[in-house]
Amino acid sequence: MPTAKTKALVFDVYGTLFDVHSVEEKCQELFEGKGKEISKLWRQKQLEYAFLRQLMGQYASFKTITTDSLRYALKTLNLSFQEVHMQQLLDAYEKLSYYPEVPEVLQQMKHKKLAVFSNGSRDMLEPLIHHSGLAPLFHEIISVDDIKQYKPSPASYNHVLNVLGVEREEVLFMSSNGWDISGAKSFGFQTAWINRSQSPVEELNQKPHHIYEDLNGIVEWR
Amino acid sequence: MPTAKTKALVFDVYGTLFDVHSVEEKCQELFEGKGKEISKLWRQKQLEYAFLRQLMGQYASFKTITTDSLRYALKTLNLSFQEVHMQQLLDAYEKLSYYPEVPEVLQQMKHKKLAVFSNGSRDMLEPLIHHSGLAPLFHEIISVDDIKQYKPSPASYNHVLNVLGVEREEVLFMSSNGWDISGAKSFGFQTAWINRSQSPVEELNQKPHHIYEDLNGIVEWR
Repeated sequence: MPTAKTKALVFDVYGTLFDVHSVEEKCQELFEGKGKEISKLWRQKQLEYAFLRQLMGQYASFKTITTDSLRYALKTLNLSFQEVHMQQLLDAYEKLSYYPEVPEVLQQMKHKKLAVFSNGSRDMLEPLIHHSGLAPLFHEIISVDDIKQYKPSPASYNHVLNVLGVEREEVLFMSSNGWDISGAKSFGFQTAWINRSQSPVEELNQKPHHIYEDLNGIVEWR
Repeated sequence: MPTAKTKALVFDVYGTLFDVHSVEEKCQELFEGKGKEISKLWRQKQLEYAFLRQLMGQYASFKTITTDSLRYALKTLNLSFQEVHMQQLLDAYEKLSYYPEVPEVLQQMKHKKLAVFSNGSRDMLEPLIHHSGLAPLFHEIISVDDIKQYKPSPASYNHVLNVLGVEREEVLFMSSNGWDISGAKSFGFQTAWINRSQSPVEELNQKPHHIYEDLNGIVEWR
């Protein structure tokens, strides 16, 4: 159950507030019949590259990684492409659609301290949030790029505490990404997994405190 | 080109010497029509869980991870299963097939110092290598479990130097896993990517020194 000690509601961005697969349409427009495959592989490699660079100690910004993973995806699918196609798809990534319930839920919670916390670098995160019109609802936009430590490293989650001036158990963290929820729980946040795809819980020995099928579930924390 | 300073030939195990998808047959026997899907998702989650646990600072042995990732894969595919099915598949993982060229190539190289270096823990690695009959060809079986640091962290590759008593540039490291080659190159090994699946080079800014389509390519290092 929600607890009174919760002072900050912190939201992951990609997959949680915004649908990363809303680029599928643009992929489809440029590479007919391949939209879904490109979008899926792009996302998979984007996450993998963030993890791998953190593991190798070879940090690069999420913008770089998003570009690199798109290039890998297009090459893997044997698609012939030019830099202009890459640019159009990367531009589309700054105009992702939010999930339909997001604005209403955030409005209902706006008396709390709301923040986003993302692996995204500011050069892609800020255009996205400003374009969406949701920016005024957030107290802070927190990016791992400020400390160059990707989620799910403990150092990344610790950055949230430094920015917001709260203790770890005072944070309720929401993400649709099971790996992100596992990392946040391991660090000591309260966690709510927004399980949009009705997936099994990740087998990482970090069961989420709460599971909701979409963001509407969190209004009980009002 | 091969250089005279190479003192040790170090081989990754899973995917490089042994075909992880040789469990597909057993998967298929237990879950008809689902063999390929199970095998693919199992491997994908196995790697992901190793990366994530390293990132979170929540090490668990590769045997645990291999069990957990299998459970996740079976749940995701909505398959009804019992622990006895899990055990049969995990047993099959200790009897993976090696790729056909492996014994002959290793025989040709055996005057060099040969070692394997794997994310696998000894309780799965040693049964596999002994069962294969290849054990006498290796000077060392090196497992990250001895230091509890997964590849591709720099600490993991450094363990190879401690065990073999060589310098990083004296190691030629072979792996079929692009992420492993990226980590090894970043650390400072000479690298040969055994690109069995004819994939593009990973976009991680760590181009392999050498690329071969199977292990036969390395006989030029004899």
